[in-house]
Amino acid sequence: MNLEDYIRIVPDFPKEGISYKDITPLLQNPKALDYCVQKFTESISAEIDLVVGIESRGYFLATLLAKHFDAGFVPIRKKGKLPYTTLQESYDLEYGQDVLEIHEDAIQASQKVLIHDDVLATGGTAKAACNLVERLGGEIVQCNFLIELAFLEGRKKLSTVEVNSLLQY
Amino acid sequence: MNLEDYIRIVPDFPKEGISYKDITPLLQNPKALDYCVQKFTESISAEIDLVVGIESRGYFLATLLAKHFDAGFVPIRKKGKLPYTTLQESYDLEYGQDVLEIHEDAIQASQKVLIHDDVLATGGTAKAACNLVERLGGEIVQCNFLIELAFLEGRKKLSTVEVNSLLQY
Repeated sequence: MNLEDYIRIVPDFPKEGISYKDITPLLQNPKALDYCVQKFTESISAEIDLVVGIESRGYFLATLLAKHFDAGFVPIRKKGKLPYTTLQESYDLEYGQDVLEIHEDAIQASQKVLIHDDVLATGGTAKAACNLVERLGGEIVQCNFLIELAFLEGRKKLSTVEVNSLLQY
Repeated sequence: MNLEDYIRIVPDFPKEGISYKDITPLLQNPKALDYCVQKFTESISAEIDLVVGIESRGYFLATLLAKHFDAGFVPIRKKGKLPYTTLQESYDLEYGQDVLEIHEDAIQASQKVLIHDDVLATGGTAKAACNLVERLGGEIVQCNFLIELAFLEGRKKLSTVEVNSLLQY
């Protein structure tokens, strides 16, 4: 299966000059979804206790990965969305900063954690997610992504963890 | 299994007087996740072609339901998030309005569709989602929710479709 066949390129979204990689054709196809889970999981031999999904497109595959590993699922959300006590990490945007949060009781020390998001771009979001997981004592087994925008070199920000992506642009 | 044991009540979130039902303890527990999928799916005998999840907490369980039925997954998103051509529906908030969108090619005529969200409150969001699915020609088999805030009577807005919820408050 060629996953690229299920990615729709949308020019000039969300703004002029950006060639957006739309994953909704992939999500619509159960065989493509199964294939993604298979490709993600065949590279992981460790046990996984928790899969962390990053808001909000990271959630699509994260619960399927959790199901595969018989693991729990933990959402990392944008500021103000989680109702209980949180840890926060800020990260840089093109203009300004944003904040990610995780519940303080989401992960127990030494739990084995897989972090998932749909796209690895500059790596700022993923790095903030790694920091949150590590501050709670979680051990990151891998960060994985459907799509890696390799020219943005986000992988460099994640040099201390294993990174896996299914499609590179 | 008593699902209520996995719901954390957070007082005064997102604002004073609201008793928020936090589902993250449930998500963290793989047995509770499995149990939810089992309870949701045992009430459905029809074939399901697509599961529609409503942004963003509806995504958590929607892809697991899609997996169970060997169905595709379709996200309904807040305005401006979907990259391709969309259909829109507005719905009332406490103050003002908001807009939900679906890709115009997300559903083919006569496909059997399951709609999922985490919470049924006033029903405005769910009704807008139903309208989007029906405008694309989808046949709604059921709308289901982890939690129904029954005192808000959201079910009345969904009188033309089958509604199922696992927990009522």
